Amino acid sequence: MKKARGEDALIEHMERAFPGGGPLLLGPGDDAAVLRVRPGYRLVATVDEMCEGVHFLDRFSTPELIAGKLLRMNLSDLAAMGEARPLALLTAAGLPRAASGAWARRFVAALRAGARRFRVAVAGGNITRSADKHFSMTLLGECRGFVTRYGARPGDLVYSLGPLGLARAGLELLLSGAARAGWAELVEAFWRPRPMLAEGALIGRRGLASAMLDNSDGLYRSLGIIARLSGCRVKASLPDEACSPALRRWAAARKKDWRLYALAGGEDYGLVFCCRPSKAALVGRLLPDAVPVGAAAKGRGVEVEGYGGEIPVFEHF
Amino acid sequence: MKKARGEDALIEHMERAFPGGGPLLLGPGDDAAVLRVRPGYRLVATVDEMCEGVHFLDRFSTPELIAGKLLRMNLSDLAAMGEARPLALLTAAGLPRAASGAWARRFVAALRAGARRFRVAVAGGNITRSADKHFSMTLLGECRGFVTRYGARPGDLVYSLGPLGLARAGLELLLSGAARAGWAELVEAFWRPRPMLAEGALIGRRGLASAMLDNSDGLYRSLGIIARLSGCRVKASLPDEACSPALRRWAAARKKDWRLYALAGGEDYGLVFCCRPSKAALVGRLLPDAVPVGAAAKGRGVEVEGYGGEIPVFEHF
Repeated sequence: MKKARGEDALIEHMERAFPGGGPLLLGPGDDAAVLRVRPGYRLVATVDEMCEGVHFLDRFSTPELIAGKLLRMNLSDLAAMGEARPLALLTAAGLPRAASGAWARRFVAALRAGARRFRVAVAGGNITRSADKHFSMTLLGECRGFVTRYGARPGDLVYSLGPLGLARAGLELLLSGAARAGWAELVEAFWRPRPMLAEGALIGRRGLASAMLDNSDGLYRSLGIIARLSGCRVKASLPDEACSPALRRWAAARKKDWRLYALAGGEDYGLVFCCRPSKAALVGRLLPDAVPVGAAAKGRGVEVEGYGGEIPVFEHF
Repeated sequence: MKKARGEDALIEHMERAFPGGGPLLLGPGDDAAVLRVRPGYRLVATVDEMCEGVHFLDRFSTPELIAGKLLRMNLSDLAAMGEARPLALLTAAGLPRAASGAWARRFVAALRAGARRFRVAVAGGNITRSADKHFSMTLLGECRGFVTRYGARPGDLVYSLGPLGLARAGLELLLSGAARAGWAELVEAFWRPRPMLAEGALIGRRGLASAMLDNSDGLYRSLGIIARLSGCRVKASLPDEACSPALRRWAAARKKDWRLYALAGGEDYGLVFCCRPSKAALVGRLLPDAVPVGAAAKGRGVEVEGYGGEIPVFEHF
């Protein structure tokens, strides 16, 4: 289950309510569910949603951007399972009466193009009228093994792979209505996150990770999820190399602390994973872009070097 | 693809845009998609949605009613595929900030109860903030054979199985705010349609139907879909036995034409199917409640005895 801000308690309630069983090898609470539908055959399934006024505003969105991001968000969930291969998607769209048929046709065309690009079949859809635009997507895939969020142990190292803080900076830029010239990378990070399917598959195939999730809620929350589900404490520290040149430039221009964006920004859709210390050399060799951001220890919760208390969480809007 | 009223053209566009292929044995355009994920193993998948202000109003809904109907609508789509067995569901919920945690927990509890009742695993979910309440659900199942919407041939007989017009009458009752005493059956038909899984499975297993769909859009539209997709004309005629006692009593009290409700009401979630004349006796014996409502002929479109022109279509609200 993924969440709106501030609904952690509800999510925990839901995870307890649906503990798996039956065909479920892994139920709600991970990036995707895993179903054993045939001996030796495992299906993965995940659902995600984008709502106008919460995840985007009409004035800075297009059907192409929405369709693309919806697919990429879901693919990112599959990437976080390890060796999952996308198979098919179903989507439900709510469109206000004012949204023209042309808008919907552009959305459909973009969905088709995205599905072709990522080799996913479009299996079904539903269109309904609604007050605001909203779009949910269920993505199905198949997998051999899978990596959960709960396998970290004290002593494991924690890595971040992919952008940090860029999407949040991009969203602030879009919300401010400021000129986007020179900041294309930030806007791109917000609208067109790259699902790390190849990296996730490599991590799964080589058995590198003890726990993994996609970084959709920001690094601080991601670490909190690993800590809570794995029953350990995560001590984090953000090295300078975790800051991309674009974020550094943006933070300098706006006089912001880049670490807060990296920790709490959200919607980055990279991967956060843990590994045993014995695998660190292999991780360094196979995934040179993976940045060490901490280690698991005995205890509970997340502690970030240089930030004493709670990290302030960005609301979407 | 199912649709909001008046979006037939868009649906047709989408069906052309996603013609199937890859793992898809049957793509968008039927009650559910069929995917061949392993030799000899077929997955069915369908998605449906309910939006506040379009499918229900807050003042006459509860979390339990919404969760139950959402599941039943989706199960009905599976029933219309023939021998499909429900497997797992994923749901996406949009809740306004004003919806309390208690509301959401009741929704979760009701979803769990419904899933247990119909033996479906809850595989995943997503909660987001939104302006109005909305809920989409993807239901996965497995099937051996399946019945499409496009197999009807001239000469086939057409049957309706299940309630006709009751859900629309129930909705009008709820909208009017009138006392519901004495009309429980209508309100029940709107909120708690019975997915005809056993009947659908029987039809599939015995190979009774040349085409089948669930009657979510009203009989007239259902017949239109069969006619269009099968490339034939449907000549329909509603015998008195198609009118349930509750609808007859309601139509008399409100001075309404019951046939218009039966033809255009929508949200009935029964089954509409065609069969070769040689199977009529078997249908009569195995499904004594199936009501003959017409026959397929050469040509195009739908013609209803006693109704010269177009049947007026009810808007949701």
